[in-house]
Amino acid sequence: MSLNTFGHLFRVTTWGESHGPALGATVDGCPPGVAVDEAMLQHWLDRRKPGQNKYTTQRQEPDQVRILSGAFGGLTTGTPIQLMIENTDQRSKDYGEIAQAFRPGHADITYHQKYGLRDYRGGGRSSARETAARVAAGGVARAALAALVPGLSITGYMVQIGPHRIDRARFDATQIDQNPFWVPDAQAATEWATYLDGVRKSGNSVGAVIEVVASGVPAGLGAPVYGKLDTDLAAAMMSINAVKGVEIGDGMAAAELTGVDNADEIRMGNDGKPLFLSNHAGGILGGISTGQDVVVRFAVKPTSSILTPRRTITVEGKETDLITKGRHDPCVGIRAVPVGEAMMACVLLDHLLLDRGQTGGIRGQIG
Amino acid sequence: MSLNTFGHLFRVTTWGESHGPALGATVDGCPPGVAVDEAMLQHWLDRRKPGQNKYTTQRQEPDQVRILSGAFGGLTTGTPIQLMIENTDQRSKDYGEIAQAFRPGHADITYHQKYGLRDYRGGGRSSARETAARVAAGGVARAALAALVPGLSITGYMVQIGPHRIDRARFDATQIDQNPFWVPDAQAATEWATYLDGVRKSGNSVGAVIEVVASGVPAGLGAPVYGKLDTDLAAAMMSINAVKGVEIGDGMAAAELTGVDNADEIRMGNDGKPLFLSNHAGGILGGISTGQDVVVRFAVKPTSSILTPRRTITVEGKETDLITKGRHDPCVGIRAVPVGEAMMACVLLDHLLLDRGQTGGIRGQIG
Amino acid sequence: MSLNTFGHLFRVTTWGESHGPALGATVDGCPPGVAVDEAMLQHWLDRRKPGQNKYTTQRQEPDQVRILSGAFGGLTTGTPIQLMIENTDQRSKDYGEIAQAFRPGHADITYHQKYGLRDYRGGGRSSARETAARVAAGGVARAALAALVPGLSITGYMVQIGPHRIDRARFDATQIDQNPFWVPDAQAATEWATYLDGVRKSGNSVGAVIEVVASGVPAGLGAPVYGKLDTDLAAAMMSINAVKGVEIGDGMAAAELTGVDNADEIRMGNDGKPLFLSNHAGGILGGISTGQDVVVRFAVKPTSSILTPRRTITVEGKETDLITKGRHDPCVGIRAVPVGEAMMACVLLDHLLLDRGQTGGIRGQIG
Amino acid sequence: MSLNTFGHLFRVTTWGESHGPALGATVDGCPPGVAVDEAMLQHWLDRRKPGQNKYTTQRQEPDQVRILSGAFGGLTTGTPIQLMIENTDQRSKDYGEIAQAFRPGHADITYHQKYGLRDYRGGGRSSARETAARVAAGGVARAALAALVPGLSITGYMVQIGPHRIDRARFDATQIDQNPFWVPDAQAATEWATYLDGVRKSGNSVGAVIEVVASGVPAGLGAPVYGKLDTDLAAAMMSINAVKGVEIGDGMAAAELTGVDNADEIRMGNDGKPLFLSNHAGGILGGISTGQDVVVRFAVKPTSSILTPRRTITVEGKETDLITKGRHDPCVGIRAVPVGEAMMACVLLDHLLLDRGQTGGIRGQIG
Repeated sequence: MSLNTFGHLFRVTTWGESHGPALGATVDGCPPGVAVDEAMLQHWLDRRKPGQNKYTTQRQEPDQVRILSGAFGGLTTGTPIQLMIENTDQRSKDYGEIAQAFRPGHADITYHQKYGLRDYRGGGRSSARETAARVAAGGVARAALAALVPGLSITGYMVQIGPHRIDRARFDATQIDQNPFWVPDAQAATEWATYLDGVRKSGNSVGAVIEVVASGVPAGLGAPVYGKLDTDLAAAMMSINAVKGVEIGDGMAAAELTGVDNADEIRMGNDGKPLFLSNHAGGILGGISTGQDVVVRFAVKPTSSILTPRRTITVEGKETDLITKGRHDPCVGIRAVPVGEAMMACVLLDHLLLDRGQTGGIRGQIG
Repeated sequence: MSLNTFGHLFRVTTWGESHGPALGATVDGCPPGVAVDEAMLQHWLDRRKPGQNKYTTQRQEPDQVRILSGAFGGLTTGTPIQLMIENTDQRSKDYGEIAQAFRPGHADITYHQKYGLRDYRGGGRSSARETAARVAAGGVARAALAALVPGLSITGYMVQIGPHRIDRARFDATQIDQNPFWVPDAQAATEWATYLDGVRKSGNSVGAVIEVVASGVPAGLGAPVYGKLDTDLAAAMMSINAVKGVEIGDGMAAAELTGVDNADEIRMGNDGKPLFLSNHAGGILGGISTGQDVVVRFAVKPTSSILTPRRTITVEGKETDLITKGRHDPCVGIRAVPVGEAMMACVLLDHLLLDRGQTGGIRGQIG
Repeated sequence: MSLNTFGHLFRVTTWGESHGPALGATVDGCPPGVAVDEAMLQHWLDRRKPGQNKYTTQRQEPDQVRILSGAFGGLTTGTPIQLMIENTDQRSKDYGEIAQAFRPGHADITYHQKYGLRDYRGGGRSSARETAARVAAGGVARAALAALVPGLSITGYMVQIGPHRIDRARFDATQIDQNPFWVPDAQAATEWATYLDGVRKSGNSVGAVIEVVASGVPAGLGAPVYGKLDTDLAAAMMSINAVKGVEIGDGMAAAELTGVDNADEIRMGNDGKPLFLSNHAGGILGGISTGQDVVVRFAVKPTSSILTPRRTITVEGKETDLITKGRHDPCVGIRAVPVGEAMMACVLLDHLLLDRGQTGGIRGQIG
Repeated sequence: MSLNTFGHLFRVTTWGESHGPALGATVDGCPPGVAVDEAMLQHWLDRRKPGQNKYTTQRQEPDQVRILSGAFGGLTTGTPIQLMIENTDQRSKDYGEIAQAFRPGHADITYHQKYGLRDYRGGGRSSARETAARVAAGGVARAALAALVPGLSITGYMVQIGPHRIDRARFDATQIDQNPFWVPDAQAATEWATYLDGVRKSGNSVGAVIEVVASGVPAGLGAPVYGKLDTDLAAAMMSINAVKGVEIGDGMAAAELTGVDNADEIRMGNDGKPLFLSNHAGGILGGISTGQDVVVRFAVKPTSSILTPRRTITVEGKETDLITKGRHDPCVGIRAVPVGEAMMACVLLDHLLLDRGQTGGIRGQIG
């Protein structure tokens, strides 16, 4: 792994800036013979696409992905897959003031401090636009997973926006695609709409928590210490823009449990496989998947580009107040849902290949 | 990075099992000319050493570290440093029952499923003993940091045990070394002692939250996407045994903030450097350090080896109830404090070298 | 490093097939603030461009490189640089027969065996067109080296074609750019032209040896064992299509030397630095540069696509004779000269950054 | 890969100095369930062991390897395997003069220049003793290969010493173990003994060429560009101390061939598999194995520690003449034979795992 690359065997390198000619992902190590095409990847990108409703940035981008290499006759060839998305709506003029002043809570100042220069147009490399490339790469990972592990599914949704959490008793997965928040609760969707309207109109923004669940994950994925499945999931989610916390299973709340409560007791299932009676562990023990649902949550901080003036400094060291005009998401966490799903897909495929490489995918028998 | 290795340039590979002849860390990429000796590393190991009070396992191990390579005349040579700790107190007989049955909430079952066999003596590779090797490697990282960044300090402490959180108003750093919990609050130390006694006597265990703060970190460490400083910190902390959640700065609570509140506003300090008026970001923006304190928290789940019977299955697929005898920590989170510090040291040094490699360590001027 | 990526800190991932829409290189880890533009990179690509004379393939490609990311205002930003070259002259019809039969001596059969399918158009990923992407990336590396190590120069040239070797007594560096063979000897250029004409007209091809010399390389680049400068140079050159041998300094001939002859004796130079009296080592001792010229040679086998029929089999397992029509180089080694230079530039920059990362670039004093 | 680590999935990190307490190899990523024990590894170490005859250094070392981790009940567990060899014969007093003066042709000066200090005792990290760790790791790789690819064999032998090459017409594999040179020719063994006696008595040393052949390698190992099988073999062999050239198949001589001669023509074998009529390619096309013998050669330069005085300088910059006393090999190439075999084993296993990871090891059918 490296600066802009993640993955051990299924390796994704994203590139590109918000307002450059294009951005994309270079995907290496994909199994050969996997059916992929641009329409399939476009499906996932369309889910993430901004400008779809008033809760995401009004920047209008078709975000059309092109496959420039690594596929032939509709199948992956095992060689690098280049996925390119051209930037078509680059209103650079919106960003004049940002060239001089650093948005508080934004990467503007650290990019300047580290590199001595920065592409200030729309946040450059630090823009959330980078996540479009992840979603495209995640589409390839999903296609490979579909071929290798039939029945595996990945579902992301929001469980919290600002102070409002979902009521788990009303959890309804069929609602997720029915509202702009990817929230599994119709009532919450209505309430959150009102809440977020207020946030937006007041020139403010707010954070969110996203949960991503993978079902049908084989037992045995992951490895000790730095190859732990949860290590890589934590890294994958924390690498998404604006993420400040990552939880596996019970997450931070695990601190409050006793060992008696935390033990996910085991019985033998009717299928002759281990049957866990609970899933505090989020499907991972000792860094290795148990075969239960893999459950990850991550918190996204509020967008730092807001219409309310905040105190900051300029490149010249002058103190100033800054209002960030432009088209910004009042809750960037909404668009993080498909991104979290994409990262889950990439990590699971990577670990599937890693495990197949080291162990041949043969499992220790029980019984 | 790989299965048992972490780091980009300062690379640590830990090896060894709980009840094998020895365990250790192979440290590659350390700068040359750094003063290290066994006594210096022993200091950090002694902080982590079990058997020091009734709140940690009564296993008595001197945990003496030897430097087998990579140092000459008291200085690192720039070649791999091998740190070995011999296992001297290997009461394998304690672990007979574990050979057959899988402890619920433990890696026993996943190691069996993945590898088809496991070293069941004391948890083998999945034992918390592995973290001794991290602490030794962290000692080397601290020595290098001391040489390269005078004034950088790393401090870990517990902020929660079970349901009991510290009162930040009573925070007193001088207390951290004065109690067995590394808690910065004398009153909490007393209360927690009573609480944990009860947990232990009832044959139970409990989780904890640890906070690690690094002060004096230069601005500019970290890089986009997968080389983010917080990405690597999340991975480093999540890779520690029993950790289920990681937070940077405000962490999961960032979801509740608005953009107005979350903005760490900036003024010019008297030293001509940026002065941040708050630190919701935990010292990292866009994956790159701001120069503020780097603040990480992680949750440790309760020890799964407990004296209360839990339902489980055996390797033969028979259902059974299991009590885990032996010498186990009622709160493994206590010993995670020096481990978290060690991981912070390793990650910071690694990013310091990475940054020096790519940018030469030259910073963009402000003003 | 990985399947299609090379480099430790300065990492280049090439992608693309001979007859796909485009090919290119994703360059990560470049120092920020380096002046690069498309014209500068085009200069190096034009040197490699086919169709310039009758000794290289008559495929006409402008091979125009575009910088899609990682530069702003003419300077590198420290983020990934995407270099794309569109394929404009894709005469796929030439390659019909190749879809069925495997060219002897070509990667056709192994790609089929490994991946189960292959992009047979022009060799797909195994085509020498991939090296255009390396030359573009090498252009970035040269720009960074020029900024970091003024005075460093890299020069490649042919020293052998088929059985004809250069006469070192006639070595004239000024001739290198004056003939289609990059040969430092005007007389050889004339003789080789006649020789290669004959090879080409007979429907045959021939191999070559290229030498690449880097002058002005600082002492101290490289590291023990797998980070050796010569290890990475050997890998870099062997990774070029059709290369079958790599030599450092005296290379294979070192076997014939005695220790007395091989010792590059050392005196003190007038500049107060070590002065080596010979350079059998090719500028590298123990994997680390000495400050002398770094000298690498590599052998390129003859093009396997020839007009003379050769026995082979088809995908269906039928035996057949194959003539490879199309526009092929009679000596692909000619175009390997700028490719070898590019790889040298990438390896040197990578090791410069690695060394700066680990040691800070501070050198042990002598005297 | 990194400074002292090689391999993608089967990763070997060697550590240790010639005269430190111990040296060894940390082996990560080994498949689980492979039968290994110390006696098995000792077998390979004994082949490399110095002091066995007058042609290798008279340093007497038992070179006994211990397995400190990663095996349980005689089987690998899939966790890191630590292999340690204690240094028992550390006559440091022999090396007094070397502390001050740099041996010409040796890494002494470059280690000093790079790191500012060096462990001068016996060459420290740059000593050929490091290769003992590789041989131990190679023993693990051989055991895994034996389990995964029955019938695969690896054989190394010398084909040249100084100016004396073997006569391929007299090649007799049964002779390899019958003489101190690992030469497949009884007559050459006798002649070389006389020749090397003379070299040794004159206080000189000489170089050699070693060939390593792997038979029974499955088709399909390797990958494009930097994951080429020959790329990694070139890197592996070039990383061995004193190696200056690496060849695959016809190697440097490929430059002299025409395309007609170089084409390894293909017919269908009686087993329904492709049958190659020659093997100029050395078993690798496009970086991927063909199923033929994989053939690698490498040249080892003469030992730089010789009894004949050579001109050099001291750390203080004083000019001097140096004679290197001590127990040195007149031809270090002899001991490189088992080392080359070990590296071949490591590279093949690594690529077997890599291929299994990406493709599942399923091969494209022919016919």
